[in-house]
Amino acid sequence: MIPNYPSALLEEAVHEFSRLPGIGKKTALRLVLHLLRQPEEQASAFGNAVIRLRKEVKHCIHCHNISDSDVCPVCSDFRRDHLLICVVENVREVMAVEGTAQYQGVYHVLGGLISPMDGVGPSDLEIESLVERVRTEKPEEVLLALSATMEGDTTAFYLFRKLAGLPVKITTIARGIAVGDELEYADEITLGRSIVNRIEFKS
Amino acid sequence: MIPNYPSALLEEAVHEFSRLPGIGKKTALRLVLHLLRQPEEQASAFGNAVIRLRKEVKHCIHCHNISDSDVCPVCSDFRRDHLLICVVENVREVMAVEGTAQYQGVYHVLGGLISPMDGVGPSDLEIESLVERVRTEKPEEVLLALSATMEGDTTAFYLFRKLAGLPVKITTIARGIAVGDELEYADEITLGRSIVNRIEFKS
Repeated sequence: MIPNYPSALLEEAVHEFSRLPGIGKKTALRLVLHLLRQPEEQASAFGNAVIRLRKEVKHCIHCHNISDSDVCPVCSDFRRDHLLICVVENVREVMAVEGTAQYQGVYHVLGGLISPMDGVGPSDLEIESLVERVRTEKPEEVLLALSATMEGDTTAFYLFRKLAGLPVKITTIARGIAVGDELEYADEITLGRSIVNRIEFKS
Repeated sequence: MIPNYPSALLEEAVHEFSRLPGIGKKTALRLVLHLLRQPEEQASAFGNAVIRLRKEVKHCIHCHNISDSDVCPVCSDFRRDHLLICVVENVREVMAVEGTAQYQGVYHVLGGLISPMDGVGPSDLEIESLVERVRTEKPEEVLLALSATMEGDTTAFYLFRKLAGLPVKITTIARGIAVGDELEYADEITLGRSIVNRIEFKS
């Protein structure tokens, strides 16, 4: 139990921090007291970064990724393959795919996954805009890079049906044993899929 | 590794969050993306709470605890025993002692503990002001409620010597087996102290 705060300002700041996911009252107090020990400019920089981000950030008009301008750096890069669209859940997945340095196409950020449990339906996501993009931009391939969860699979299946009539190749990232994983600890479903989808060995 | 951010605003906010203790880049990104999904007012409330706190918060002129006004609620409460001063490290310890509802005196917040390893010496703490307070306010008792660590013990010993010549009783909170702890798992030093400082059994 955390008892009365000696200061309403302190309580307010702790309250705001403790609304963040995974941050309890005790952690919030620790973080706020840390900020209180910093120079005033640093606390201002922290607060203003949050305010500015929420106020000024945009979404790319093509791929809907977070961006400082109307068109994001990836979409405005002509060296990238604009006929290959990778469909991802969110900006974090864009950054994860970019981090591999294995992908040269562009993106389409859905803004979430279909999840009836959380009340997220297809109309809450950037699905219509994807269909429209495939229709007008006529890409060669749409690569679905979604999580291997029920929500990811549901979304992939929905997208597959939505895009089925259009002249585009639809692919999905490989499921299998993660690099570095020991076989005996892999779950049966993953191991089963990795056998069904086995690939030719190249030396 | 977290690769390039698609937005400088996003990167800035993540950078600010990741300067907080115990918050890495990945957690920072998760928290920032959460704030981005909230209504603009909530992101503003969050940022402004931090800025206002750092700018407007005061320290009580008597006990040096964090306060909204020049004199904190505890020091301005005449029902409390102003002849009993509890010396603590920081506001968190004030809140912890208040949470017990077992203490009716006032406080003196040192603002830290003597720690040569971290470069914190006696002059960095509110020690002179404590000596001055004992001299002028003439309390009956000074209760040292410091952590049972090397820093806490060093600070307690230093305070004891500083206050030794003054007509005040100096006490320290009891060290012993924590309520709910099993004896066999207690460390020997704690168990030893709890035997040396044994108290008369009252039914």
